Amino acid sequence: MLGIRRVVVKLTGKLFDDRSRAGVLREIAGVISRKASEGFRLAVVVGGGRRAREYIELGRELGLAEGVLDMVGIEVSRVNALLLASLVGGVAHLPVPRSVEEFLRAWSTGRVVVLGGLQPGQSTNAVAAVVAELVGADLLVNATDVAGIYDSNPKENPNARLLKEVRVEVLEGMLRSEELAGLYELFDRVAMNIVKRSRIPLVFLSAYDVKSLEGAIEGGEFTGTRVLY
Amino acid sequence: MLGIRRVVVKLTGKLFDDRSRAGVLREIAGVISRKASEGFRLAVVVGGGRRAREYIELGRELGLAEGVLDMVGIEVSRVNALLLASLVGGVAHLPVPRSVEEFLRAWSTGRVVVLGGLQPGQSTNAVAAVVAELVGADLLVNATDVAGIYDSNPKENPNARLLKEVRVEVLEGMLRSEELAGLYELFDRVAMNIVKRSRIPLVFLSAYDVKSLEGAIEGGEFTGTRVLY
Amino acid sequence: MLGIRRVVVKLTGKLFDDRSRAGVLREIAGVISRKASEGFRLAVVVGGGRRAREYIELGRELGLAEGVLDMVGIEVSRVNALLLASLVGGVAHLPVPRSVEEFLRAWSTGRVVVLGGLQPGQSTNAVAAVVAELVGADLLVNATDVAGIYDSNPKENPNARLLKEVRVEVLEGMLRSEELAGLYELFDRVAMNIVKRSRIPLVFLSAYDVKSLEGAIEGGEFTGTRVLY
Amino acid sequence: MLGIRRVVVKLTGKLFDDRSRAGVLREIAGVISRKASEGFRLAVVVGGGRRAREYIELGRELGLAEGVLDMVGIEVSRVNALLLASLVGGVAHLPVPRSVEEFLRAWSTGRVVVLGGLQPGQSTNAVAAVVAELVGADLLVNATDVAGIYDSNPKENPNARLLKEVRVEVLEGMLRSEELAGLYELFDRVAMNIVKRSRIPLVFLSAYDVKSLEGAIEGGEFTGTRVLY
Amino acid sequence: MLGIRRVVVKLTGKLFDDRSRAGVLREIAGVISRKASEGFRLAVVVGGGRRAREYIELGRELGLAEGVLDMVGIEVSRVNALLLASLVGGVAHLPVPRSVEEFLRAWSTGRVVVLGGLQPGQSTNAVAAVVAELVGADLLVNATDVAGIYDSNPKENPNARLLKEVRVEVLEGMLRSEELAGLYELFDRVAMNIVKRSRIPLVFLSAYDVKSLEGAIEGGEFTGTRVLY
Amino acid sequence: MLGIRRVVVKLTGKLFDDRSRAGVLREIAGVISRKASEGFRLAVVVGGGRRAREYIELGRELGLAEGVLDMVGIEVSRVNALLLASLVGGVAHLPVPRSVEEFLRAWSTGRVVVLGGLQPGQSTNAVAAVVAELVGADLLVNATDVAGIYDSNPKENPNARLLKEVRVEVLEGMLRSEELAGLYELFDRVAMNIVKRSRIPLVFLSAYDVKSLEGAIEGGEFTGTRVLY
Repeated sequence: MLGIRRVVVKLTGKLFDDRSRAGVLREIAGVISRKASEGFRLAVVVGGGRRAREYIELGRELGLAEGVLDMVGIEVSRVNALLLASLVGGVAHLPVPRSVEEFLRAWSTGRVVVLGGLQPGQSTNAVAAVVAELVGADLLVNATDVAGIYDSNPKENPNARLLKEVRVEVLEGMLRSEELAGLYELFDRVAMNIVKRSRIPLVFLSAYDVKSLEGAIEGGEFTGTRVLY
Repeated sequence: MLGIRRVVVKLTGKLFDDRSRAGVLREIAGVISRKASEGFRLAVVVGGGRRAREYIELGRELGLAEGVLDMVGIEVSRVNALLLASLVGGVAHLPVPRSVEEFLRAWSTGRVVVLGGLQPGQSTNAVAAVVAELVGADLLVNATDVAGIYDSNPKENPNARLLKEVRVEVLEGMLRSEELAGLYELFDRVAMNIVKRSRIPLVFLSAYDVKSLEGAIEGGEFTGTRVLY
Repeated sequence: MLGIRRVVVKLTGKLFDDRSRAGVLREIAGVISRKASEGFRLAVVVGGGRRAREYIELGRELGLAEGVLDMVGIEVSRVNALLLASLVGGVAHLPVPRSVEEFLRAWSTGRVVVLGGLQPGQSTNAVAAVVAELVGADLLVNATDVAGIYDSNPKENPNARLLKEVRVEVLEGMLRSEELAGLYELFDRVAMNIVKRSRIPLVFLSAYDVKSLEGAIEGGEFTGTRVLY
Repeated sequence: MLGIRRVVVKLTGKLFDDRSRAGVLREIAGVISRKASEGFRLAVVVGGGRRAREYIELGRELGLAEGVLDMVGIEVSRVNALLLASLVGGVAHLPVPRSVEEFLRAWSTGRVVVLGGLQPGQSTNAVAAVVAELVGADLLVNATDVAGIYDSNPKENPNARLLKEVRVEVLEGMLRSEELAGLYELFDRVAMNIVKRSRIPLVFLSAYDVKSLEGAIEGGEFTGTRVLY
Repeated sequence: MLGIRRVVVKLTGKLFDDRSRAGVLREIAGVISRKASEGFRLAVVVGGGRRAREYIELGRELGLAEGVLDMVGIEVSRVNALLLASLVGGVAHLPVPRSVEEFLRAWSTGRVVVLGGLQPGQSTNAVAAVVAELVGADLLVNATDVAGIYDSNPKENPNARLLKEVRVEVLEGMLRSEELAGLYELFDRVAMNIVKRSRIPLVFLSAYDVKSLEGAIEGGEFTGTRVLY
Repeated sequence: MLGIRRVVVKLTGKLFDDRSRAGVLREIAGVISRKASEGFRLAVVVGGGRRAREYIELGRELGLAEGVLDMVGIEVSRVNALLLASLVGGVAHLPVPRSVEEFLRAWSTGRVVVLGGLQPGQSTNAVAAVVAELVGADLLVNATDVAGIYDSNPKENPNARLLKEVRVEVLEGMLRSEELAGLYELFDRVAMNIVKRSRIPLVFLSAYDVKSLEGAIEGGEFTGTRVLY
C-alpha cells in the first residue's frame, strides 16, 4: 500500500442548502470520482447545513433534549452524505456508515467513503479528525465557506488577510477565543486534540474553489491555509 | 398476549413540515405515549413531507436516479420518525428501524416502534401495511390531512361528502383512477394488496383530529372512514 | 467506472427444485463467474421455487399470517441464493444480503451479489427491479422457465408465438389481465412501476438457455423478448 | 431474577418434515407460549430435518464444500425456527438470531428465543448446549423422536429398555461408539463437553410426548431419561 | 414512565485491575442488580484500567497510530463491561453495545446496560455524559478511586479537603489546569460540555464506597461531591 | 479466481503476551502484508494468550459461568486480532469479524482478515478450521510455540524428535491421549473433524520461525510437520 495517498475531506453542509449550489456539488463529486479512479484513497465527511439547523429548531420547539437534537442534526448530515455518495457514483461506498466500525468496514472495500456525523456532543469536524487518524491520512482538508484562516474575521473586516500558514498553537488560540470560533466554524476541541497528537497535515480552503480542492488532494498547489506543527 | 390490542398508525409527513404544527405533534405523541402505557401495542409509520420533497428535488437537480431519490426521501422520513420517537419518550424504541428485520427486533422489546420508509419503489403506506400484517394488527389507522375518504375531491368540491364506510373494492377503484389517487395520497397498490389479503381493519381519519385518533386506537368512536371487506 | 456493464439477472427458483437441474445451475454459475472475471458487474436475484411453496403450505396449515408466509418464502429463496453464490465461488459475495442496505454494502465490494427476497408483500421480481434501479443497471434479465413473452399462453396454445419485442404498455396490459399474469409469473406491479419510471432495459428469456443468458449479459444475441419503452 | 426457571429445549427438525406433524407442532407451540406467559424463560433450538438433508444433497450434487453444506443446513433450520417462533406468537422474539451475540440480544428482551444452527462444523445439539450454558439454564431438554436413552437401539431391538437415568460417563461412552451415535442422533462432542463442564441438568424425551415436554419444563414429571453427573 | 429514576454510573476501570478488587466488584454488581429490580433504570460505563494501559503500551511499542491505540483501549474497557454485565446477571443486557445506536437499542429492552468506550479521541467519561444526556438521566455518578473533588490534590496534600459541593465553573477551571486534570482523571472537555449544556445532575464519589454509590443512585445520602450549575 | 493461493494461519496468542515479542509480531505482520500484496489470500486467527487467561481467572474469581469465561477469552483474542490487523496495515480488513457471517463479509472485500475466537465451547483452532473450510483454503498453518509435532513431548524429553510428516490418524490418537493434548495445545476435536472431512492441507510450525511461516504460505520449504491424510 506504499505510495497510496490517503486524504480526508471535510465539506461544509452549506453545499446542500439549496439547488443553487448543485453545480459546485457536481464539480466536487467529479473531482472525488476522478481522484479515486487515479488511485487516491478518499474519505469525505459532510456537515448538516441549513436543513439540519431547521430540523434542530423544530426539535427544540418540541422540547427535545440536546443530545436528541444532535442526533437529528447527524441524521440530516447523513442525508447529505447519501446525496454526495450517489453523485460520486460507482467508486463510492454505500450505505453511509453510521459508526466508526461501519466506517472501517466501508473503508476496507477500497471505495471512497462518504459520511456525516457519528455521535452526539461532537461536530463533523471531530468526525473528520477521528477518521483521518484511523486511516493514517496524509492530509485532512477542511473545505468551508471561506478561503482559509484569516488574521481577522473576513466577514467583518474587508482588509482581513488570508494566512498561507498558521502554527497550530495560534489556531488553537483562535478557537479558544469564542467569538472567532463561532464565526469561522472551524474546528472543535476534539478535532484539535486529535490532529495535534497525530500531527495530521491539515489545510483549510474554500469548498467553492474546486480547483484548490483538487490541488490539495493531489499534494499540489491550492489557495488556502496550511497548519504548521 | 390475548386481549392486547395492536394498532399501526400511518402519520402524514406534513406534520413535520414546519414549526406551526408542533402543537399537534405534541398532542399525538401524548396520545401514543398514554395508550402505550395503558397496554396497547403500537407501531407508527411516518411519511417524509415537505422536506423529503425538497431533498428529492435537489437530488433530481443533481441528476440522481429515481431509486436513489426514493432512498433520500426514506432517510428524511426516518428523521421525522426519530423526532416523533423522542417526543413519545421512554415507551418508544430507539433507534428507528431501517429494515423489516430491525422492525421485528424493535417490536420484540415491547416498545412503541416509530419508523419511516423502508425500501425504494414503495410508499410509507405500503410500509404501514407490511408492518400491520406482520404484527397481526387489530387496526391500521391512516392519518392524513383530510378527514377520510370523500365521494369526490374535498379540495375541489365544497360539497364533497365524507363517507363513513367504504367497501374495499370501491376504494380500489378510486386508487385506479389516477387523479384521485394523486389528490388524496391515500394508499398504493402494495398496501392495498396486503390489507385485502389479510383483511386488516383499516380506517382513514385526519391527523389533526387527535381525539378521533385516540378513539380509533381504543376501538371507540372517531370521525373518519372505515373500510369494509 | 465508465464502460463497466452492469447487469441484474432474475433467476426462477425452479432451478433449485430438484437435483435434475444441477447441470443447468452449474452452467449458469459458470457464466456468472466468467462474466464477472471479464469485468461485468452482476447482481443475481433468485426465487424460492417448489421448496418455498411447500414451506408456505406447511405454514398455512399451521395457520400463520400471510406476511409470515411471505417471510418463510423469502428465507427459502435465500437458501437458494446461498447455494448459487457458493457455486459461483470466489467472485461472489457472501453472506447473502437481507435488506437493501446490506445489498448496497455487498455491491460496494465489487463482487457478484446473489440474493433472494427482501420484504413481505413483494415478489423477487420486484427485488430485481429495485436492485437494477439502484445500481443503474444497463440491463435487467428475467430468466424464467419459458423463452420469453408470447402472444398467447405457450403452455395452452401450441401455436403461441414468441415475441422478439414487446412495448411496455402491452406488457403492462398483459399483467393487468390476471390469468395471464398467473400463468407467466412474469412481473409484479412494483417491478413494472420501477422499470418504467427508470426505463431500465429489460429482456425475458429462458433460464435453461444458458447461451442466450450469456449473450444477453454481454449485450450480444439471445433468444427471448426485449421490452421497448 | 431469583426463582425464574430458565429452560432450553432442543427440538428435532423432523417435526417440520411434512404437514402430518402440524398438530404436534401446534401443541408444542402452545406449551411454549403458555409456559412463557407463566413466567418461565425459554430458548428453543430447532434442527433442520428432512428439508435440510435434501438441500444438502442438492448442494453435494453441485459439488459444494462441506462447510457450505453445513451453512445450507443451518439456513434451513432457521426457516424452521421462523415457523415455530411465528406459531408461538407474541411472546416469541423475531427475527431468528444468527449468532451468539444476536441470541444474547434477543434473550435480553425477555421473550422466548427460537433459533436454528449457528456455525459450520457444529450440530444444533451443540447450539443448545452453548445457549443453555450462557443463560445459566436450570434444564436442557433434548426432545428427539425416541422417548429417551435406551439400553440398546430401540429401532433394532424390540426389547430395548428406556433408561430413567443414565450417568454422563455412560452416555459419553455411547457417543464414542459411533454406530449408536449415528442411530440416536443424540449429542455431539461439543455439546457433551459443555454440559459436563457446567453440569447442566439434562433430560432426553420424545418431542411427540408434549405432556412430558411440559412436565420437564415445569420441573415436574415426564417420561424420558435424566442424565446424572 | 413518570417517576422512574434514571441513573448513569461511570466506574473506574481500576476495579478490574486485579483479583484483589473482586469483592468490591461483586458488591457493586449486587447494588446495580438490586436497584434495577427495584425499578431504577441504570446504565453503567466502565473504564479500561491497567490492562488497557498495558495493551496500549504494547501497541505503541509496535508503532501503531494513536487512534488505533484508543480503539485497543476501548476494546479492553468492553471486556470489563462484559465481566460486569455478566456479574450483574439476568437484569443486565448483553451483548455490550459498541455504538450509540447499539446503546439505544439495548436501553430499549429495559435492562441495565453496561458498556465501555465508544470512539477514538474520547474518554469513557465522555461516553457516560453522552449516554446520560440521551436517556435524560436524573443523575450521573462518577465513581473514581478518590472520594470526590478536593480543594487540592489529596494524593499530594494530606490536608486536602473534600468538597461537598463545587460549582461547575470551578470544576471547569480545575480541568483547564492540566496537572490537576491529569491527577484526578476527572472529566474531559466533551463530558464537561455535555453536562453543562443539559445541566445533568452530577456527583463524584469513590467506587470503593459502595454504600455511597447506592445512596446516590437512590437519591439519598452519600459521601462525595455534588456539582452545582 | 483460479491460481490464487488461499492460506489460513492460526497464530498462538502468546505472541501478544508481552512487549518482548514485538519484534516477531512485526516480522509476522510484514510477511502477511507482503504475501497479500503479492496476491495470496490470507486469513489469520489469533489466540488469547496470557491476558485471556488472566481475565478468565478474574472472571472465575468473580464466580462467572464457564460460557461467559469463554466469551471473555474470545474478546481478548479479538483485542490481539485488532493489534495484528492494524500492524498489517492497509491490506488488512477492519473491524475484526465477530461471527462467521461477519468473517465472510470481510473476506468478500479481498483483504486479509484477522480474527480471534467466535463462540463459547470452541477453541481458536476450531475457528481456524471452520474458516479454512469455508474459504476452500489450500493450506492451514498452525503456528504455535514449538516447531511442530514431536514423537514425544519436547518440553520434557530433550531427545524428542520433530516429525516431518504425521498421518492424521496418528495425530488424532495423540489428541485423544489427554496429557499430550494439554501440553501441545494443538488441535481440538471440532478442528480435527473439519480438517479430516475436507482433507484440508495442514502444517504445524513455530510462530517464531518467520521464515518457515513465509515458506509454508508460499507453498515452499519450511521447518515443521505436515499432516498426511
